[in-house]
Amino acid sequence: MTDLNTQLGVNYPRGFKSAGVYCGIKKPGLLDLALIVSETEASVAGVFTTNRACAAPVRWSKQVVAAGVARAIVANSGNANCLTGEQGERDAQRMAELLAKRLDCTPQQVIVASTGVIGVPLPMHAVESGIAQAFERLAEGDDRAAAEAILTTDNSVKRASLEVAAGAVRIGAIAKGAGMIAPRMATMLAFITTDAQIAAPDLQACLTRVVERTFNSITVDGDTSTNDMVIALANGASGVALQGDALTDFEQGLYRICEYLAKRIVKDGEGASRIFEVHVQGAADSDAARRIARTIAESQLVKTAIHGGDPNWGRIIAAAGRADAPIDVNRAELHLQQTLVFQQGRPTDYDERALIERMQADEVQIRLTLHDGDGEARFWSSDLTAEYVQINAHYRT
Amino acid sequence: MTDLNTQLGVNYPRGFKSAGVYCGIKKPGLLDLALIVSETEASVAGVFTTNRACAAPVRWSKQVVAAGVARAIVANSGNANCLTGEQGERDAQRMAELLAKRLDCTPQQVIVASTGVIGVPLPMHAVESGIAQAFERLAEGDDRAAAEAILTTDNSVKRASLEVAAGAVRIGAIAKGAGMIAPRMATMLAFITTDAQIAAPDLQACLTRVVERTFNSITVDGDTSTNDMVIALANGASGVALQGDALTDFEQGLYRICEYLAKRIVKDGEGASRIFEVHVQGAADSDAARRIARTIAESQLVKTAIHGGDPNWGRIIAAAGRADAPIDVNRAELHLQQTLVFQQGRPTDYDERALIERMQADEVQIRLTLHDGDGEARFWSSDLTAEYVQINAHYRT
Repeated sequence: MTDLNTQLGVNYPRGFKSAGVYCGIKKPGLLDLALIVSETEASVAGVFTTNRACAAPVRWSKQVVAAGVARAIVANSGNANCLTGEQGERDAQRMAELLAKRLDCTPQQVIVASTGVIGVPLPMHAVESGIAQAFERLAEGDDRAAAEAILTTDNSVKRASLEVAAGAVRIGAIAKGAGMIAPRMATMLAFITTDAQIAAPDLQACLTRVVERTFNSITVDGDTSTNDMVIALANGASGVALQGDALTDFEQGLYRICEYLAKRIVKDGEGASRIFEVHVQGAADSDAARRIARTIAESQLVKTAIHGGDPNWGRIIAAAGRADAPIDVNRAELHLQQTLVFQQGRPTDYDERALIERMQADEVQIRLTLHDGDGEARFWSSDLTAEYVQINAHYRT
Repeated sequence: MTDLNTQLGVNYPRGFKSAGVYCGIKKPGLLDLALIVSETEASVAGVFTTNRACAAPVRWSKQVVAAGVARAIVANSGNANCLTGEQGERDAQRMAELLAKRLDCTPQQVIVASTGVIGVPLPMHAVESGIAQAFERLAEGDDRAAAEAILTTDNSVKRASLEVAAGAVRIGAIAKGAGMIAPRMATMLAFITTDAQIAAPDLQACLTRVVERTFNSITVDGDTSTNDMVIALANGASGVALQGDALTDFEQGLYRICEYLAKRIVKDGEGASRIFEVHVQGAADSDAARRIARTIAESQLVKTAIHGGDPNWGRIIAAAGRADAPIDVNRAELHLQQTLVFQQGRPTDYDERALIERMQADEVQIRLTLHDGDGEARFWSSDLTAEYVQINAHYRT
């Protein structure tokens, strides 16, 4: 596997083009519509939000993924097309139809994604002209425009790519972060391309495993968006059919890209000043490890303590104690920034002043060892700041 | 049932005395040890934190409640006696023994409660002198000292009492709020006395039902303390055995007191500037209603929107959608401050400016109607403010 290239994303694999344009959904000057197109039919896999109030494009794209074949992705930012009733369903389908007509494929081969304000109908006139414009600009090479056109309140573009299988197969991706969207809600999107030859069910299995340990292991505020999706397209342009070691290498490469983008999303979370990793090991099983890690990562008390650089181990143990999973406090060991602070049911005699110093780092590590079994999980989270509250309370005032 | 008297608490029922003193756990001048004593043996019931990292006094008091009979409660603030190892267990028992000796009862008839800093051994010398002092000051009449001695970062004492069964039976209670404790964590305590004659199992059943709809239906930050407990003592001094209508009246009176104290705790939550009620009706069942109400009440996005006075219905529907309970968005109706803002899967044509005006109230009402069944639940929550973050991030810096 090669090193990660963070200057190129979905255009890196062979046989993919992209474009990003401004069409009038967001404020002038901000790109708001992206296309990612494969020259040929591609295997498609996807992971979607579990929110029951999910948006129309999520419902549409789930059908595309179920069929297993796609040619392209059309995504807009600035409007989530969510909680928009029947009109929303028609608009999502129309986006697929507009692009399918130009690609000469069926609408059922076009993934649709939207992110932004909810409860407002899509300005379809703008979307229509945006798809036309973007189609004319489809190009290989730099994919910054597409990466930019899916952003909302993110501070920077997020893209990554690398080669696996001894350079024979390429993987690339772009993502947008979990910022709140003006003025409504957080969404997370990631689009992955690869020129590997891989059947849709295998791609799906691989993507599901990777997403569980990356995009599904991050939290900014514990709220689940209505529009989240991660999509992978594999067009086979490398001519390499993945099997054996090459498949393992592919999955590791995909993990590396998704982990990088997931952590970038946390770092770019609204109001975040630092991030922290919660590593739970020795839990009864991996499900228990995930529940405990997630509860610690989402705890407001832990997030504010991390913000203040306070080695407040009591809040971490208390959060672990309320997770819906078994834990024996007397067997637990807690490390903060590699310092053992809690053991045998009570605090150790650690150097508090030195630890406070080390809690000021940009990334803080929390490691909880339970000695109950083999379960292990990692979660990444951002701190909770006054700026977060300002951004989300006073947007419209 | 009479009106609520908020100037008197546990001393109102016949046959109870209380005291509150400063003994040296907190800063000088702040009361930190309370006693509540029944003249005779009382039926006892209790509801405790479900946190697996619960404190030593919680484990002790659970045994007392299991036996069904108690004479007294000893409670200290300023130190939670939590995550203090074997020493903590011995100290909790010692507190019971010290009071039992003076009362000439068994230690197993004394409830012990602690709230405050975790991970620090109790200063037993101070506690011992505190119990001796407080015992000398046990008195009927005003119970302000006891109500004050259980507070931590609360802004005000919380007590309430009333008469039920046509004046024959009295109920009184004191509580402390869900503020963060210097420098560790939130705890909630409530002690209820009554001179009704009622067997422990009946008292427990009644208390469990009432707590579920009051103290277990509030949230400040979604974190569960290691020390929470609600205890009820019934000494029978009224000579009235509860049955039939009198029992119903008793439960209603108990509910009224607990609802008042629970809402006072939310209002007094750290950094809170306003509170809101989440009322879910028409859910598939009451369990589903509670899950949905709790998820909305705990959502950081909803809490910040309420803080900003923003009628952000999208965040409320999105929170409902991620609750682990069925919901059909197309059948849902959402009212904010009695204004219908969402129906048939999309927003209504409401007057946004007028609604923003009404969102500035001290108490905001959210009502979500699902048309899926008979399930109903209410949850009370406080808004999330920059002050909350300041208090919890920068306590030690």
